[in-house]
Amino acid sequence: MAPAGEKKNILERLDAGEVVIGDGGFVFALEKRGYVKAGPWTPEAAAEHPESVRQLHREFLRAGSNVMQTFTFYASDDKLENRGQSLSFTGRQINEAACDLAREVANEGDALVAGGVSQTPAYLSGKTEEEVKAIFMKQIDVFVQKNVDFLIAEKTKKINQEKLQYFEHVEEAEWAVQVLKSSGKPVAATLCIGPEGDLNGVSPGDCAVRLVKAGADIVGINCHFDPETCVKTVKLMKEGVEKAGLKAHYMSQPLAFHTPDCGRQGFIDLPEFPFGLEPRILTRMDMHKYAREAYNAGIRYIGGCCGFEPYHIRALAEELEAERGCPPPGSEKHGSWGSALSLHTKPWVRARARRDYWEKLKPASGRPFCPSMSTPDSWGVTKGHADLMQQKEATSKEQLEALFDKAGQGH
Amino acid sequence: MAPAGEKKNILERLDAGEVVIGDGGFVFALEKRGYVKAGPWTPEAAAEHPESVRQLHREFLRAGSNVMQTFTFYASDDKLENRGQSLSFTGRQINEAACDLAREVANEGDALVAGGVSQTPAYLSGKTEEEVKAIFMKQIDVFVQKNVDFLIAEKTKKINQEKLQYFEHVEEAEWAVQVLKSSGKPVAATLCIGPEGDLNGVSPGDCAVRLVKAGADIVGINCHFDPETCVKTVKLMKEGVEKAGLKAHYMSQPLAFHTPDCGRQGFIDLPEFPFGLEPRILTRMDMHKYAREAYNAGIRYIGGCCGFEPYHIRALAEELEAERGCPPPGSEKHGSWGSALSLHTKPWVRARARRDYWEKLKPASGRPFCPSMSTPDSWGVTKGHADLMQQKEATSKEQLEALFDKAGQGH
Amino acid sequence: MAPAGEKKNILERLDAGEVVIGDGGFVFALEKRGYVKAGPWTPEAAAEHPESVRQLHREFLRAGSNVMQTFTFYASDDKLENRGQSLSFTGRQINEAACDLAREVANEGDALVAGGVSQTPAYLSGKTEEEVKAIFMKQIDVFVQKNVDFLIAEKTKKINQEKLQYFEHVEEAEWAVQVLKSSGKPVAATLCIGPEGDLNGVSPGDCAVRLVKAGADIVGINCHFDPETCVKTVKLMKEGVEKAGLKAHYMSQPLAFHTPDCGRQGFIDLPEFPFGLEPRILTRMDMHKYAREAYNAGIRYIGGCCGFEPYHIRALAEELEAERGCPPPGSEKHGSWGSALSLHTKPWVRARARRDYWEKLKPASGRPFCPSMSTPDSWGVTKGHADLMQQKEATSKEQLEALFDKAGQGH
Amino acid sequence: MAPAGEKKNILERLDAGEVVIGDGGFVFALEKRGYVKAGPWTPEAAAEHPESVRQLHREFLRAGSNVMQTFTFYASDDKLENRGQSLSFTGRQINEAACDLAREVANEGDALVAGGVSQTPAYLSGKTEEEVKAIFMKQIDVFVQKNVDFLIAEKTKKINQEKLQYFEHVEEAEWAVQVLKSSGKPVAATLCIGPEGDLNGVSPGDCAVRLVKAGADIVGINCHFDPETCVKTVKLMKEGVEKAGLKAHYMSQPLAFHTPDCGRQGFIDLPEFPFGLEPRILTRMDMHKYAREAYNAGIRYIGGCCGFEPYHIRALAEELEAERGCPPPGSEKHGSWGSALSLHTKPWVRARARRDYWEKLKPASGRPFCPSMSTPDSWGVTKGHADLMQQKEATSKEQLEALFDKAGQGH
Repeated sequence: MAPAGEKKNILERLDAGEVVIGDGGFVFALEKRGYVKAGPWTPEAAAEHPESVRQLHREFLRAGSNVMQTFTFYASDDKLENRGQSLSFTGRQINEAACDLAREVANEGDALVAGGVSQTPAYLSGKTEEEVKAIFMKQIDVFVQKNVDFLIAEKTKKINQEKLQYFEHVEEAEWAVQVLKSSGKPVAATLCIGPEGDLNGVSPGDCAVRLVKAGADIVGINCHFDPETCVKTVKLMKEGVEKAGLKAHYMSQPLAFHTPDCGRQGFIDLPEFPFGLEPRILTRMDMHKYAREAYNAGIRYIGGCCGFEPYHIRALAEELEAERGCPPPGSEKHGSWGSALSLHTKPWVRARARRDYWEKLKPASGRPFCPSMSTPDSWGVTKGHADLMQQKEATSKEQLEALFDKAGQGH
Repeated sequence: MAPAGEKKNILERLDAGEVVIGDGGFVFALEKRGYVKAGPWTPEAAAEHPESVRQLHREFLRAGSNVMQTFTFYASDDKLENRGQSLSFTGRQINEAACDLAREVANEGDALVAGGVSQTPAYLSGKTEEEVKAIFMKQIDVFVQKNVDFLIAEKTKKINQEKLQYFEHVEEAEWAVQVLKSSGKPVAATLCIGPEGDLNGVSPGDCAVRLVKAGADIVGINCHFDPETCVKTVKLMKEGVEKAGLKAHYMSQPLAFHTPDCGRQGFIDLPEFPFGLEPRILTRMDMHKYAREAYNAGIRYIGGCCGFEPYHIRALAEELEAERGCPPPGSEKHGSWGSALSLHTKPWVRARARRDYWEKLKPASGRPFCPSMSTPDSWGVTKGHADLMQQKEATSKEQLEALFDKAGQGH
Repeated sequence: MAPAGEKKNILERLDAGEVVIGDGGFVFALEKRGYVKAGPWTPEAAAEHPESVRQLHREFLRAGSNVMQTFTFYASDDKLENRGQSLSFTGRQINEAACDLAREVANEGDALVAGGVSQTPAYLSGKTEEEVKAIFMKQIDVFVQKNVDFLIAEKTKKINQEKLQYFEHVEEAEWAVQVLKSSGKPVAATLCIGPEGDLNGVSPGDCAVRLVKAGADIVGINCHFDPETCVKTVKLMKEGVEKAGLKAHYMSQPLAFHTPDCGRQGFIDLPEFPFGLEPRILTRMDMHKYAREAYNAGIRYIGGCCGFEPYHIRALAEELEAERGCPPPGSEKHGSWGSALSLHTKPWVRARARRDYWEKLKPASGRPFCPSMSTPDSWGVTKGHADLMQQKEATSKEQLEALFDKAGQGH
Repeated sequence: MAPAGEKKNILERLDAGEVVIGDGGFVFALEKRGYVKAGPWTPEAAAEHPESVRQLHREFLRAGSNVMQTFTFYASDDKLENRGQSLSFTGRQINEAACDLAREVANEGDALVAGGVSQTPAYLSGKTEEEVKAIFMKQIDVFVQKNVDFLIAEKTKKINQEKLQYFEHVEEAEWAVQVLKSSGKPVAATLCIGPEGDLNGVSPGDCAVRLVKAGADIVGINCHFDPETCVKTVKLMKEGVEKAGLKAHYMSQPLAFHTPDCGRQGFIDLPEFPFGLEPRILTRMDMHKYAREAYNAGIRYIGGCCGFEPYHIRALAEELEAERGCPPPGSEKHGSWGSALSLHTKPWVRARARRDYWEKLKPASGRPFCPSMSTPDSWGVTKGHADLMQQKEATSKEQLEALFDKAGQGH
């Protein structure tokens, strides 16, 4: 394999009009495999169970991913130790291990390594621009040292009580982009917003313009909403950027869950988050549709976030096989659009070996006692409310019971 | 770790009243990870990508599985080469590799290794009892040599055109049990039937009696139906065995898909099989319910089949933590019943950190344009019909188009 | 119009192989129109608002009904006065008015008048055969005097606290048939049971045999279940009668609500009964299907019960137009199978002017937050339980609150 | 009863802050009763079967309606005779009969008579303002002669091929209001639009301002959308009017069908229109919710359109009993919020005799094979397209088959 330096970098690829396939969601996939704890969602597996992280990287590579995102986050040691988690690894150890794993697997193919930087608690605590930027600077330290190929300012893979983990405010994302640019590496920036814009009501078009002006080479959306919503939002970003006479590349990394019913804050408010989302999981046919719609919308960096398993990514790569010039490696174990079903014993299953069948299928839930949409929780709690206050201590039993009562009344 | 020989064997455990947690479905899980091809469903990954099989074994072990089933099948070399697959490994190489992987991971914990034997094409071709038994004998050759801990006569992990891959006829399962008993190892036998009995109409109770009389130590059900249906069917088996004054242990390894709408032949006839089953995937809450119902029904060997991912198995082990005396190793990364959500940022998500919430949740599909149940295909094709005939050649384009037309008319 | 005496009677019609179309459900239709109170469900409208009852009879006649069932019940005066209802009419006045209304409208076409006799509280109170029969005798007094054309022993149109209003026990229905036969008029007998048989577990086939032996000319099913279930049950009755070497005519008068999810006791146990049943209402396409299936099953007296509106009955008559030799009068205002949509302004609505379109349509509920099936209430309360005890007094506030608590716990 | 002249007129009532309950939909209700033909939807029943129209008026009066809308339309004789309908009545005869029926029943209570004027084909054919106004003038001729109490410019009760029957363009509605005002009677004007505005994109607020400036005393929305959507749209109208410093009264007369999935053109584009809408019918609980939301939004004239049956109107009047000062007459046969179920035999049904139960109920469809939402037809046919062209002749078989083919491709 060629050393990283000899691969075309992310901007060379996008400038040449190539399709770049992203990877899928590590926290959700590794939670189901037993290596990440839902709740704190910390990524210590990179150091603690490296084989599990390496294996998942490999599966995405086989599926066609052109980018290995490091399974990292800004992990100050005090954070990792709090709330009785007392992990055996420092944040730096985890981040370094994650970079090494991503590079190791990226070098098994033609993939690039991307390091991710996320929202900071400092911003929400009302720190100044300088303070927040200092934190971002610290975050990219390991990435620069480990020489990742480019940087993504995005929702990280970690969600916990200390930090609201997403760039839901364009201002902070701008600051992040400004800091990341100083590394000299290409910078992508994704927000977790829907067509209605960020939590302050800045429209997707305006958000995109601000990110591009701040220096982002690639802008887009990740997490929180399903592919249909994300593509729609990136379209609005693209319109905004073009209207402003600017240029950028576009990316989308949506959920692999159908979320037609979620509100402005995305899937976290759905009653099914995070342990009842199964009926919403997208099929590979849904993924073909997403890949085509994203491509048609002018998006060329097409990947996924929470819920994306390797076969979802493979479906993206297969849909765009003609545009990419080759199938993903993993297609050796897949007959696109069900074609391998022609080998099946039963004639009615062989009759499903065609694209037409799967495109028209409206898959049943097998759950006649369940609804098809939910009402998102929306407690109307806003920043500053006591229930949102950060606290060092674990949530107490009394605090929890007060919440349970509150939830009970709401139903 | 103790050598295999020093562990309590499967019957010692069951005789002592212990709960034995099985593992989940390898073909479906590895298909999604990119190592198994849907259609031929062959297990060459054991030799070709051993790290993927090892990793999945490990995840099940962490989840609490007490049994590692070998990822094998009766693989004569001509079978592996046909239809242009031209695999680089012989059947024996694959089977040996699979046994070694299962043993390696079993030894990392307190798990046993089980070798599986499945239905033969010979039976369907009308061969004599002697001929069929000779084939079973050949199948267990590797298992005996590799000294697996016990044998399971069941649906194998492979479904292809040459073989109807399940024990859907009790007579053949009886023959298999008789041969397996000759190995001197404990023998379990599972059928792929629902409450209506086998394809010849033999009731679950009568099936179970015949298997026990043939020598099976453990009898039960695997694959084809959801947990609710499988538990119901094992109950009927147990009633039959007890009514006959016999004794046995009981096991169930159902699908992790809801199948309230499938007919006698199970999930294969559902229009969603195999690429549109996502909305039917069971949640971990569904798994708690299954584990409890199985336990209450007197079933002590409780595992899963197609669709079961590691977190599903972990939920079984967590539900039965009191009965088993300890949580599964993987619970270090899991707050049972959502308890770790008490660490979440948003108060309404913290309010979900309780069993009550998840037990009552009726998860929405997010698919308002889809139905909740499907009509199974049922072409009325029976044994001997031309469409079911085995053929050496790949299904031709003309044959497929004839099937597509037929399917089109039916809709 | 010919006087009643010159019309062919019900048995002459059925013996000649004619299709007899029944009418629909008066209590439910008149409840929605504002003349019947859900809860007591008493039929005083016949005397109090005769125009409303006459109008509904006329609509059914136009829709093709060949039978006008009297809107009556066994109304002893003390019953009508209890619980503060203090109606201004005696039971006899109501019953006479109902007979007159049915006859008046029947004479506007070729319809017959049927008088209905229902289950008695006496039976449930453990009275003797003689006592129960005496009550039935009293019930038919008005019918004989008013010279109705035939009698139906069935669920009446009234459901109240004093009486379980259906023939759910074949024994009492037998007694009713014996008494009705003494009138010299043809007798039909319908039960409110599903395929599992009556509340004592007597099978549909055995029930039918006993009714025929008791003298019933026509046997069948009414109320409690949807058409699919009712047709299935009447089939079982027919098989039983034929197996016993007997002869009879068959009728079905099902609900116009889909009830795939209800248990042995029918739709009353569904949580939606009686004020949330709208999403279950059958369309006219569903009715075409019912009429055809009933006809194919050998049923020749085909009508409806609760939920049937005039257009439902018209759909039955239209489906069987060829067999009946003419369309119903009301078809002058109906293009069968949507054909009149060819007059519509919008081309995509004109494109719906065909049977094919409506037969394939899977109508959406417009209710994505609702499930498609419900869990029936089933408190396990059996005869003799305190909660089922009859009482003269209105249910007290305390009694109600105890029930509410009980219901609350059950959810 | 007081003569019409002595009742408070519509504006006196609204000015005094009274709630005015409208009536429901005649074409849909009478179609189900067998007196109106779906497709042409003509109102000849007023002359041909006056008892059916009188009865429906009476049921709405009992249900609490304060307004009887005449069952009329602009019926020139050539229109009634075309396409082989050859009705036996002239348009004038029908309109006069309808006025007489409405007045007769209005005088049985405290209701007013409203005459309705609708969109003209002339407008769509590009006629001048003068020509269109002349046609409106002709329409109100009978109403003035019959001395109706006020006029409503709205969707009429008739939909046919000659006319797009709704005020979907605010300009034409303005002209209608100007003409109606010349009668000296109070004028209400309703549009068939959703929150997105009229077909030319004029917003609800702007539409309302123009109607009020044209002279409308009452403005609002009718038909095409469900209550939730209509209330939302009237709110926008009210905001517009108030922002413009104007004053008006507000009304809403929505569908009684849930339409969360319909597009800009409303329920006509739903695949279920008009023969598969049953699963979408609102329950009485839905109506309570609608009445309260409309009231809270400042709407005081609250009624219904297609799908509203008498019991739906009664639920509106019952929800607003306190505000209106009395229950509707029909409540003598209704226990509000299920209270009369306390008389039921079965304890679990008695446990439903409470508001809480019915408010929380999510009624199941009993249709697990159907979706919960549909994709509206949207052929992209716009004004001027050949498929929309008016033609004197009936749609030919060839024309229909061309449409069927087109529809077939679309699915």
